[in-house]
Amino acid sequence: MVKKQPRRTAERILEVTLALFNRFGEPNVSTTLISSELGISPGNLYYHYPARDELINALFERYERSLGELLLAAHEAGDVEDAWFFLHSLFELVWDYRFLYRDLNDLLSRNRLLETRFQVVLDDKTRAVRGMLATMERTGAVDMGGGAPEPVATAMVVVLTYWLSFEYVRDPRRALEPEHAQQALMRGAYHVLTLLAPYMAPGQRAHMQRLAGAYRETFS
Amino acid sequence: MVKKQPRRTAERILEVTLALFNRFGEPNVSTTLISSELGISPGNLYYHYPARDELINALFERYERSLGELLLAAHEAGDVEDAWFFLHSLFELVWDYRFLYRDLNDLLSRNRLLETRFQVVLDDKTRAVRGMLATMERTGAVDMGGGAPEPVATAMVVVLTYWLSFEYVRDPRRALEPEHAQQALMRGAYHVLTLLAPYMAPGQRAHMQRLAGAYRETFS
Repeated sequence: MVKKQPRRTAERILEVTLALFNRFGEPNVSTTLISSELGISPGNLYYHYPARDELINALFERYERSLGELLLAAHEAGDVEDAWFFLHSLFELVWDYRFLYRDLNDLLSRNRLLETRFQVVLDDKTRAVRGMLATMERTGAVDMGGGAPEPVATAMVVVLTYWLSFEYVRDPRRALEPEHAQQALMRGAYHVLTLLAPYMAPGQRAHMQRLAGAYRETFS
Repeated sequence: MVKKQPRRTAERILEVTLALFNRFGEPNVSTTLISSELGISPGNLYYHYPARDELINALFERYERSLGELLLAAHEAGDVEDAWFFLHSLFELVWDYRFLYRDLNDLLSRNRLLETRFQVVLDDKTRAVRGMLATMERTGAVDMGGGAPEPVATAMVVVLTYWLSFEYVRDPRRALEPEHAQQALMRGAYHVLTLLAPYMAPGQRAHMQRLAGAYRETFS
């Protein structure tokens, strides 16, 4: 028998921790639960991650990396179809790391890395949304009258950041169960995008309604 | 010496608990801290509120009552000035009970009363915002083209609900300190109201910019 390599164990620990955090909420998951779920000793877990915060930090840094890659695509979104796809991808990523958003304020108050770096996450998202708006203005998909799109970009980021929490409050027992997640993500993308509706070229607005229409019952 | 009446003690317990929850976050306040801050014995606290959840519930019910009274005014808001005042009052109430919003998802997962009744809070807010939009449409302050204002009303409620959390993430050490709170509440009211900007009559839009202009540096 070959002994498992440390790197693979560290990787498995992160995957299982992410799944538990997402499922039960970070405050409700002890390191004891993590090691028992993995079938390893608390000592072995401690060897790889000597503090609970290091698990959170490692997961956050993964989220940061994936987000960084995804946001690069924002300024390429030239029409409603691209924007919809981009926003939906963004919601899928937030969904993958939803534990960060579930207890965001509490995590920020306890964890120094998140306290400073989550601000950067919001700045990056805002810059990406602004880039998308500039591209859509250039292609004529939207016309924001040269006015500062700042309040619109900010509102889009607020809805992006909190939509899943809003779904949860409206229906705590079901909204974020995996079988309802896809609809929740789609409603999120739709509500971010409709903030642009008043500025869209008529053809674009109609196209957005068609995209939304395919999932009509989803938007009640 | 006259013994303090139970009702007055119960009242004082709630006031002190609210202040501590708001200041440190509900998960970080033990009943030991509450009784020590009050200068009463844990037994006395227990006599009035046998479970920690009863403190949360009593505070939530106060919030609910105040909110109910405030929302009655929504359908009387016929122009931008009224709407600004209404939204600002709403933010002041959320500020008074900000602990509920700080750890909302976690509270909902632990507390049955909140789990069911916070949905009603959101429904009531949404209905009130819809009422305000209908009144503003009738007075000609906004023109939403007869189209369903639903996505706009929903986005307004999302920003209303999460604006203070958003402020906190952007600047955890300062945004929600009492000396910065007024500006944060004003930015919140402004960002909710600007969601209506594309639909406002020109005079109304100009008036909103004047109201915002009085606090220009606040909206960076």
